[in-house]
Amino acid sequence: MDRARSTERIAQDIETLSGPDYTLSDEAIRRYAYTPEYRNTLDWFTRELEALDFTVEQDPVGTLYARNRPQGEPVFGIGSHCDSNRNGGRYDGTMGVVTALEVCRLNAELGLDLPLQLISFLEEEGSGFGQMLLGSRIVAQRIAEEDLRERFLAIDDGRSFWAHAAEAGYEPERWRECAHVLDDLTGWIEMHIEQARVLQDTGNRIGLVTAIAGYVHADVTATGRGDHAGATPMDLRLDPTLPLAETIVELERLASAAGQGTVGTVGEIEVDPGIINAVAARARFSLDIRGPVDDAYRGVARDIAAFAQEAARRRGMRAEYRERQTLPATPMDERIVAALEEAAKATGEPFMRMHSGAAHDTMCVADRAATAMVFVPCKDGISHHPDEDADPADAALAAEIILNAVRTLA
Amino acid sequence: MDRARSTERIAQDIETLSGPDYTLSDEAIRRYAYTPEYRNTLDWFTRELEALDFTVEQDPVGTLYARNRPQGEPVFGIGSHCDSNRNGGRYDGTMGVVTALEVCRLNAELGLDLPLQLISFLEEEGSGFGQMLLGSRIVAQRIAEEDLRERFLAIDDGRSFWAHAAEAGYEPERWRECAHVLDDLTGWIEMHIEQARVLQDTGNRIGLVTAIAGYVHADVTATGRGDHAGATPMDLRLDPTLPLAETIVELERLASAAGQGTVGTVGEIEVDPGIINAVAARARFSLDIRGPVDDAYRGVARDIAAFAQEAARRRGMRAEYRERQTLPATPMDERIVAALEEAAKATGEPFMRMHSGAAHDTMCVADRAATAMVFVPCKDGISHHPDEDADPADAALAAEIILNAVRTLA
Repeated sequence: MDRARSTERIAQDIETLSGPDYTLSDEAIRRYAYTPEYRNTLDWFTRELEALDFTVEQDPVGTLYARNRPQGEPVFGIGSHCDSNRNGGRYDGTMGVVTALEVCRLNAELGLDLPLQLISFLEEEGSGFGQMLLGSRIVAQRIAEEDLRERFLAIDDGRSFWAHAAEAGYEPERWRECAHVLDDLTGWIEMHIEQARVLQDTGNRIGLVTAIAGYVHADVTATGRGDHAGATPMDLRLDPTLPLAETIVELERLASAAGQGTVGTVGEIEVDPGIINAVAARARFSLDIRGPVDDAYRGVARDIAAFAQEAARRRGMRAEYRERQTLPATPMDERIVAALEEAAKATGEPFMRMHSGAAHDTMCVADRAATAMVFVPCKDGISHHPDEDADPADAALAAEIILNAVRTLA
Repeated sequence: MDRARSTERIAQDIETLSGPDYTLSDEAIRRYAYTPEYRNTLDWFTRELEALDFTVEQDPVGTLYARNRPQGEPVFGIGSHCDSNRNGGRYDGTMGVVTALEVCRLNAELGLDLPLQLISFLEEEGSGFGQMLLGSRIVAQRIAEEDLRERFLAIDDGRSFWAHAAEAGYEPERWRECAHVLDDLTGWIEMHIEQARVLQDTGNRIGLVTAIAGYVHADVTATGRGDHAGATPMDLRLDPTLPLAETIVELERLASAAGQGTVGTVGEIEVDPGIINAVAARARFSLDIRGPVDDAYRGVARDIAAFAQEAARRRGMRAEYRERQTLPATPMDERIVAALEEAAKATGEPFMRMHSGAAHDTMCVADRAATAMVFVPCKDGISHHPDEDADPADAALAAEIILNAVRTLA
């Protein structure tokens, strides 16, 4: 395989899809479902895939899928999503679809004729309707019809997903048929930028994902007593920022001690009334606790909830722990990971096994098929930002590895 | 003295000044300079004081002062402020002026003819122009003319203090003459609700203030690195919420250890970007560090600044400490405090010496005269809120103590 030519083509494709026809903003990539720019992007992939003699279709909500075999015959799935977040970069999602396209090109050029199906999911980032993984959740039927009809509303105009899809010429009332997109898959590999610094910091060009982290999203609200900051002696206070602070420090300790890729983050802090000269009456903070091992991260969530409650109680206050959402970890298929590992070894390039801390469409695909993911580094871990940067040469390397893995699997 | 009658009169006065003519809100006391409701309040005090044969005047910005001696003769000052904060209660400020009025009534009834001057300052709470202690700062000449002309703008309409004062019929261009309000004072006593729980929790009805706390207001900004909360391993993070948390815990320790009435509070916390699934890039938090002993609270401010910087450095981050404002403590006059103590002892009621953690107009009066303050309890320390509650019987007790102290001082 000519990796330099693949690199050039991937770089060119990324460049093309960063042009003014494909983004709503000239300061960032901003691309989401049912906009002309999103439509242009699907049209571009359609042209490229039809040139490779793929049959390109869209499901009733706009998931693009393209096959080199008739419906009903087994195919190996590759792809990602081509929407971006609202202040996004060029690589998140799109480079995965472009790399899948490159796999299709190599398949043709090398005359391998492997049975392939490329999928480009919509609305992974939630930029259109505030719902992450929306396209793949529809395909996996992980939503309810009322969500699409009434609950999922456009960020731009507050109208429903249903209305927007219909207006764009799709048939949302047939959304249950979207499930057929996954009917014939013998396996699935998604390439994506890592969105963190592990590959860069360890000097690896390829990450083979063994599991996608599950997570607990929760809030802790500590309730104390609002008091005058000047007039209230230290020993008469019920200051909820103190159990908050102790919990933040303890979360780092617990997550680190749990190991196995467990991480814990306090990303939101809200203090009420939040003025310089008042002891807070209430402090709320969010918990994002994740990991590829359900028992490990769930144990941290359980322990930190108990710790926060005890830290508040010890100071005469109350703390309430409330879960927003939890999703189990998604293990990748060891057979596919092993095939990728063999293919990666053969390149002589540095690679590692790792887990994905971020959520990906592959979590939904995994409901129906054996799956794996391939990560490539992104500069300094920056993602969801116009500064996002990744090397097309790493994507070309990934394309080669994916193609060679599929050769042994398909 | 008939304390029951004083109690009844003070209760009645508070009730009157909580009526619809005296507040802009029917859910709270909301009263600030140059509104009809504030004017009504000054008019009411004017009528009551003229009934006692006091000469009532207003200085060029609207400070009310009333004397039972001609200008140029020594008088003992008593009073407080009669504006409220925007969501205020009935007692903060107003009960101090009402109690001073009761002192004037008792002085007349008992035929003591002590030389008295009652002062009601304006804009102590900053509800009109966002500037605390504004009236007493003008009287003490602690401001610059440009502040009044250009910088201090009405919260309601953004127009200047100057414009509002002139429109209300005052003469702001003569603001320097406001200093004369304090010319003849042989001393000053302000009564105020405590705004904390010390008196209630210690079972005292009277607090004799020995000093008003000085303070440091500052911000600490810890800068880390924004990262994906799922994808970034614990040991690759630069999470600024961690030095923030350590500093909050340390501040409690340092302030408690400093003793001597020192207190330290983190009232504002701001996390950027502040979303559940992102490690923060930056955390800012406020510091309010106070106490009656300058060396003690300033030492805490110095130590916590160093601690925060070291806590950030230890984790590979930076923290910047920036002072917003600092004001030294205001010691009260021991001769006046001792006279109040003798008078309090004579009542047989429980009292204590204490300091004021909150700022008061008396800080400005102290530039020109020997001062003291008398605190009475407020229920559960609640203040600056419609639920604010205090007992007119305690105010009546304070009136008696103040009158008897002034008898020995004037």
